[in-house]
Amino acid sequence: MRGFLIVGNNAVSDPFNLNDLPGNGRMDILCRFVAQSLFISHGIRRDVEVYLLLLGNPDRPKAIKISGRYVKGMNPDERSIGGLINKALSITSTDKWVKSTPGIFVSGKDLSRLLTEISDEKIYNTMAYLREDGADIRYFLKKEMDKMNNNIFFILGDHLGLKDDEERVVLDKTYNIVAIPTVSLQADQCVVIVNYEFDLLDAAKNTSY
Amino acid sequence: MRGFLIVGNNAVSDPFNLNDLPGNGRMDILCRFVAQSLFISHGIRRDVEVYLLLLGNPDRPKAIKISGRYVKGMNPDERSIGGLINKALSITSTDKWVKSTPGIFVSGKDLSRLLTEISDEKIYNTMAYLREDGADIRYFLKKEMDKMNNNIFFILGDHLGLKDDEERVVLDKTYNIVAIPTVSLQADQCVVIVNYEFDLLDAAKNTSY
Repeated sequence: MRGFLIVGNNAVSDPFNLNDLPGNGRMDILCRFVAQSLFISHGIRRDVEVYLLLLGNPDRPKAIKISGRYVKGMNPDERSIGGLINKALSITSTDKWVKSTPGIFVSGKDLSRLLTEISDEKIYNTMAYLREDGADIRYFLKKEMDKMNNNIFFILGDHLGLKDDEERVVLDKTYNIVAIPTVSLQADQCVVIVNYEFDLLDAAKNTSY
Repeated sequence: MRGFLIVGNNAVSDPFNLNDLPGNGRMDILCRFVAQSLFISHGIRRDVEVYLLLLGNPDRPKAIKISGRYVKGMNPDERSIGGLINKALSITSTDKWVKSTPGIFVSGKDLSRLLTEISDEKIYNTMAYLREDGADIRYFLKKEMDKMNNNIFFILGDHLGLKDDEERVVLDKTYNIVAIPTVSLQADQCVVIVNYEFDLLDAAKNTSY
């Protein structure tokens, strides 16, 4: 399994106007993040889960979970994904996950509770925090795959990165700080490359048996 | 220089409704293609040119050229890019490039004329056609960089790929058929990875001198 979380510092947590994704706390970044985590040519990665943390107006955190295994009716364009996020945000959120549409769930969890839950579930053996000054993602992934670990959860910031208090919460869960080498990229581009490097190692592993 | 061309088999060549990018010949694919070719974190790749070939309704081909060096006022969300494409499509196209907005040009060139022009300009030393059964992009790029060539033009299809007659036009210009290894990806994801592998080789080259 691969898990990807993006922290949307300003992303609104109430329903929003689909004609203005950037104006709603850069919801466009979150939509692209979902698309690039899940979609391949003519299909969806069934072994990927995407989490969105929405911390913008009205200052009432919401978390959205999208399961590649169960999601239906999603297309890779920003508006399609924004529409599904909108539906999830129209549900009154609670401490627990509530299903919005197939494979999409919403809750009122904040960063700390979300990461604690994901740690406790033990689906992922390792967490990694993507930050520009981190270690080369290729060496990190290779090391994990050599340990036969391909269940990894990745935490990314939006265009603003993670705030200090958010970073403390993340670093309480993992020491792994990793980066895409050479050029500073957008969150969704980082996910494309994580998936790509992961795919390369997966293929090499399968060939070697 | 890096150049990227996507052939939009059904992409409309008249102005379209920004609320329905997918319904206008998968204009969403072209918008993401532009975004992923040009944008990095908080900036634009100034050494990239993007070309869009729109072959859908009303069956009057249009080509759009976007220069990373000169483009202004573009954001990475699909709607922003769609808006700029729309503006270009509202101009009566001719055989020559006509400027629409800063760094964005439109013409009535078809695939053959477009590729002939790009060959004749000699900005790019090599062309490569991305097709799923091609050779590994990493070896291709490494070979070109070893020859001190980092001016490469890449040709991609949309979700439908290239038709036989289009492919013949492309293969008349280049023998290089290359692929992103292991998993079949969407055109914009392929561009993210081409840029990434290119960046890695660029960085290695600069370190070695």
